[in-house]
Amino acid sequence: MQIFKEIEPLRAHLQHKKRAGFSVGLVPTMGALHEGHLALIRASKTATGVTVCSLFVNPTQFNNQTDLEKYPRTIEKDIALLESADCDVLFAPETPTMYERPSVIKFDFGQLDKVLEGKFRPGHFSGVATVVSKLFNIVEPDEAFFGQKDYQQFQVIAKLVDELKFNLKLTGIPIVREATGLAMSSRNLRLSEDQKNKAVILHESLSDARAQLLAGKPWADIQADTINKLNKTAGLRIEYFELAHRDDLTMTTDVDLKKAVILIACFVGEVRLIDNMFV
Amino acid sequence: MQIFKEIEPLRAHLQHKKRAGFSVGLVPTMGALHEGHLALIRASKTATGVTVCSLFVNPTQFNNQTDLEKYPRTIEKDIALLESADCDVLFAPETPTMYERPSVIKFDFGQLDKVLEGKFRPGHFSGVATVVSKLFNIVEPDEAFFGQKDYQQFQVIAKLVDELKFNLKLTGIPIVREATGLAMSSRNLRLSEDQKNKAVILHESLSDARAQLLAGKPWADIQADTINKLNKTAGLRIEYFELAHRDDLTMTTDVDLKKAVILIACFVGEVRLIDNMFV
Repeated sequence: MQIFKEIEPLRAHLQHKKRAGFSVGLVPTMGALHEGHLALIRASKTATGVTVCSLFVNPTQFNNQTDLEKYPRTIEKDIALLESADCDVLFAPETPTMYERPSVIKFDFGQLDKVLEGKFRPGHFSGVATVVSKLFNIVEPDEAFFGQKDYQQFQVIAKLVDELKFNLKLTGIPIVREATGLAMSSRNLRLSEDQKNKAVILHESLSDARAQLLAGKPWADIQADTINKLNKTAGLRIEYFELAHRDDLTMTTDVDLKKAVILIACFVGEVRLIDNMFV
Repeated sequence: MQIFKEIEPLRAHLQHKKRAGFSVGLVPTMGALHEGHLALIRASKTATGVTVCSLFVNPTQFNNQTDLEKYPRTIEKDIALLESADCDVLFAPETPTMYERPSVIKFDFGQLDKVLEGKFRPGHFSGVATVVSKLFNIVEPDEAFFGQKDYQQFQVIAKLVDELKFNLKLTGIPIVREATGLAMSSRNLRLSEDQKNKAVILHESLSDARAQLLAGKPWADIQADTINKLNKTAGLRIEYFELAHRDDLTMTTDVDLKKAVILIACFVGEVRLIDNMFV
């Protein structure tokens, strides 16, 4: 695996590969890699000729300074995992390489970035759109791969690609879970064993809600019961538990279940976790 | 000259040219071409292997519906001019090709898009950034050429290219003027002969102000005198006459004259004209 920290040598390398006829796949990550990331790498390896994994903890998408500081960084282990997955290129820039000057441009996605994560993490999706635009323009991939645990992020990036006509195919890869059901997340590294056991309740709540919805229970009741149950559990603090339209994340009480997704954000101790499930 | 109305055939054509080793220059226009546009085409012809002129009257950058409707459209003459300038490719899409769905994403450039044009044309630069991003992602040029009559637009696009790391060189081309000093503009087509004579006062005001600044007269006096004079002229309505820093368009009373630009926006009858001049 070739490792680049600077933009121009990476561009030159990829230009050479593209001229030789290779297609390029991009897997943007913030490191602390896990099986979910490796599923993205494998998808890229299958679909494209050269797989680029980017590893950059993007400061502009953190609305909470502590969250940024405590975000897990495990670069040595990440490199070993990427080598084992036969990743071709790692792009691991420092912050001044990605942000030469303080960031001025902000993105607004209308309703899409005002609900759910956008409501609880103001500015988050503007930072995501900024860094993803940079990565797209640096790597100029034929295909880019994102995990669907960050479901709203995926929809925001889909909007970005569609509206700004980025010349690439966007592919979403389903959530990878632990045997317990817990969605894989870099932030899980910050959980104690006890907290990891507790965090299984996110997935359980989604599964139960889905079953109850399909059995005909009204969403308002499911939502109230779930929030009530989570709030009664020591060490948990729920931010949202919502039913939304799968494509645009509009939240209505009578969303078509075939087009619906249930989304949750919940603190387990100091660690904020998200998860989602199609109905 | 090859003419494309659709994105994918244009991309295929340019891909073929790029693979053959040609660099690509992009000259984005809204048509009603004049000598100023042809200066951009010539600059692109000199610097790159394939020159693409885009011609699209972008609805999202018009804050005024009448201005959009009355914007001059002279496609037959434009094609003849481009042929005479040996332009290689014309990309002239219809609105549904550029905007398949209603536009949702908005750009914010902080202070840069709140002053001058941004103040009088809310949303204008978001629309500019949107369409320019689309054009960059469709054409993927090595170099893009913009006229400096739209000086603030040039700075907004420079910020867009710099921050989002578009892989291209951005080149600004000086204003081309009529023998009378009037800056060439597609909107001049909407002026009567009498109005065209009147409109010379924009350039005169800039020249006079520059001379007075260099002679040591305080800007506040120059500004007040100029606005007063223009307001006394029948058929004119001034929107702004400002001294700003050349790089970021911050407006201070003690801007370094070597880094300063004077900018004007003024209605001549129903037609809004802009002009600027370095000090």
